[in-house]
Amino acid sequence: MTSLQLSAKEEMLEKFLDAAARGDLSQVSTLLSNVPSLINQTGRSGWTALMLAARNGHHHVAEKLLLLGCDKFCVNSSSQTAYDIAKFWGHRHIAGLLGQAADRAADRATHENYFSRETLDRQSGKRTDRVWLEAKQRDSDTVYLLFSDLSPMIQTQQEGGSEALQADMKLCRFRYEEVKDLLLKPSAVTIFLGIEKMKNPSSSSSENPESLSEPPVWFAINTDEDAAALLERCREKNCSFPKSPHRDLLKLSEEEAGVVAQARSVLAWHSRYRFCPTCGGATKMEEGGYKRSCLNSECRSLQGVHNTCYPRVDPVVIMLVIHPDGNQCLLGRKKVFPAGMFSCLAGFVEPGETLEEAVRRETDEESGVKVGPVQYVSCQPWPMPSNLMIGCLAAAVSTDITADENEIEEARWFPRQQVIDSLFRGDRSVFIVPPRQTIAHQLLRHWICMNSNL
Amino acid sequence: MTSLQLSAKEEMLEKFLDAAARGDLSQVSTLLSNVPSLINQTGRSGWTALMLAARNGHHHVAEKLLLLGCDKFCVNSSSQTAYDIAKFWGHRHIAGLLGQAADRAADRATHENYFSRETLDRQSGKRTDRVWLEAKQRDSDTVYLLFSDLSPMIQTQQEGGSEALQADMKLCRFRYEEVKDLLLKPSAVTIFLGIEKMKNPSSSSSENPESLSEPPVWFAINTDEDAAALLERCREKNCSFPKSPHRDLLKLSEEEAGVVAQARSVLAWHSRYRFCPTCGGATKMEEGGYKRSCLNSECRSLQGVHNTCYPRVDPVVIMLVIHPDGNQCLLGRKKVFPAGMFSCLAGFVEPGETLEEAVRRETDEESGVKVGPVQYVSCQPWPMPSNLMIGCLAAAVSTDITADENEIEEARWFPRQQVIDSLFRGDRSVFIVPPRQTIAHQLLRHWICMNSNL
Repeated sequence: MTSLQLSAKEEMLEKFLDAAARGDLSQVSTLLSNVPSLINQTGRSGWTALMLAARNGHHHVAEKLLLLGCDKFCVNSSSQTAYDIAKFWGHRHIAGLLGQAADRAADRATHENYFSRETLDRQSGKRTDRVWLEAKQRDSDTVYLLFSDLSPMIQTQQEGGSEALQADMKLCRFRYEEVKDLLLKPSAVTIFLGIEKMKNPSSSSSENPESLSEPPVWFAINTDEDAAALLERCREKNCSFPKSPHRDLLKLSEEEAGVVAQARSVLAWHSRYRFCPTCGGATKMEEGGYKRSCLNSECRSLQGVHNTCYPRVDPVVIMLVIHPDGNQCLLGRKKVFPAGMFSCLAGFVEPGETLEEAVRRETDEESGVKVGPVQYVSCQPWPMPSNLMIGCLAAAVSTDITADENEIEEARWFPRQQVIDSLFRGDRSVFIVPPRQTIAHQLLRHWICMNSNL
Repeated sequence: MTSLQLSAKEEMLEKFLDAAARGDLSQVSTLLSNVPSLINQTGRSGWTALMLAARNGHHHVAEKLLLLGCDKFCVNSSSQTAYDIAKFWGHRHIAGLLGQAADRAADRATHENYFSRETLDRQSGKRTDRVWLEAKQRDSDTVYLLFSDLSPMIQTQQEGGSEALQADMKLCRFRYEEVKDLLLKPSAVTIFLGIEKMKNPSSSSSENPESLSEPPVWFAINTDEDAAALLERCREKNCSFPKSPHRDLLKLSEEEAGVVAQARSVLAWHSRYRFCPTCGGATKMEEGGYKRSCLNSECRSLQGVHNTCYPRVDPVVIMLVIHPDGNQCLLGRKKVFPAGMFSCLAGFVEPGETLEEAVRRETDEESGVKVGPVQYVSCQPWPMPSNLMIGCLAAAVSTDITADENEIEEARWFPRQQVIDSLFRGDRSVFIVPPRQTIAHQLLRHWICMNSNL
């Protein structure tokens, strides 16, 4: 390419950018139809046509550019997207146009993480009502979920075309008649989950029109019966107990994921806390599965109220640490991660520690980076076995990284643009973000979608 | 009082208020020196002189009124304080004048609750270094705290005059030579707490000038030895093991409260979790007190990493629920509360539940009030035995109250003014707020100090 050709190209680009900046829709359209590759190019200023249209409030140009497939996640040398620019200059209609998807994502991060939906009303008052619980166990509308070794029985549905074969999972639901023998076995644990919050049209429980007034009650059973024999109980095809919950339980619908979060955590507690930690004696289940009491009448766990009798929930802080320059974030990778994946640092909250201190301590321990202010973003139950992931943004006040090799293999600062590339463009060349079902993914989205640097 | 007197008084008041509104400092001063009781009175508009000065930006008048003891927490009929009014009308210098104390309180609520200060660096990496731990246990600079039945040995200092006798407590600190026999007893539990973050001038460990470079290490011992005999070990007077931790542990300094939060939670775990919950077998302590491992080599708790081996932290949501009108908050009282005290609703987070859902479920269960948006404010470790109190503001979307009699005796909406009276003026006639060391108190302060209704 000669220097003459180069400057002709440059001239064309500057003409195109100038048209966008002036809001000249017809010239923008003409130039693009001749040279479509102009659409995402930046000129001497480092700004794209979309940024210039956003700067000057030209809604129709921005709309046209988006229609033609313009990349709205490009950033200028100050790491500002066209959305950031529109918002800063007060062009709300353009910010609305550009930010819609981003805002929805940020919204979702705040309001709903995977495993977070409360599909059922827990009705904790009913847990002590043995008569009601027993009547509901025998009710023909009642829904039972079956767990083997803490994995729920699920049905795999093969959907989509040959290229994008998508595996979709749903929970197998049972009726009283199908599981009543299991309820009698001493080794099986049956817990009360709650009452359906609203009539689910896809639920199979609605044959009886009267049931509309009384939504079904849900229970979960964990049993050590032979898994193959359990699968034979199901009328559906392609059923299984997924072997790798960390991966396979992420394929449920939001509704069912919320139920599994509750059921698996409580069942895991029964599986691991069969004996009284205070005296070592045997315990019995009470209150629909939300209490275990020591059978040794001398045990001091029976005097007063003690946490030994109630399910465990382990708070974990997970934090996206932001570089002092505001345009990089700290991610680390554990050896067990898939190749190329980096995620947020995380760790258990210790006794006598605030969330904010836990964020500072864990970041320091794992990466050597010092953290100042900490901001809560959202949280996520993670039922492996019963963590509560508390997601925060954390402002770094130092930048040198010394990764703790026992905890993580590598920790690095990632520029905003690389995060955008991986998160929104699926570019796996630099690194891979964790799947959307994780709060780490949602924290990254939240940070990118925040108007963080204006 | 005749109607003539009344209207002369009224006339004087309106003259005074008018002077404040116009910024006439000399007339304000003259009228006040004649009739000091004018200072907090409201005229026909329901506004005080301070509000009018704040409205119109008269800094010198506001300053003078404050100097003369004016009550800055009065509210008008829209529940706005002078601070709210100054802030709304953009008079920042007056807002600064009025808000200083309030802002500091809000700051403290966000950044430091009682039991939250991290006096020690936990140095978790050292927990697995047995050689280092054993050397530090024998170090003459090392600080030991002694607990009996999970209460720390404290010294009570009587201070202040006869009217305001204030009890102040501090932890008794021991040296290796004074406790080395206890370290050898199988029934005593000794845990590593951390390394002092900075040299405390009041610490008794600074006789050796070399120790400046190596801050002391702290351990805590819980023992079931005879309490009277333990007290004899101490050289100090007025020592005891407080019987009512919920009340007595609130009298420590912020620094010592932070240490006790950590020590008591971990010691309580050892006291209640001596046996393996998975197999019922005996366990041994490891990692300086932050792990217990099953002694039964067949136990499945030894395969992989399980929460049965690590200290428990129980997340609790505690929420100040705000009325849809923005000017009332929902407080409840338990039977065990001191007479007249009302506090925020609270409850344990359940497995598979987000913090926000826990706030909604608990508020509904305890009071029948429905909650919409929830906002995290701050958190507080509460070592009775190992709760993490997660403080939130919650926006009510319904107002009818049906108190759950099992949980609370009464729940009521309290107007902003009543909260201000109790919180800032010590008015105990309507209700008593919880003590300042509780996060409930800090949530109330946070709400009042927020510029909530403008």
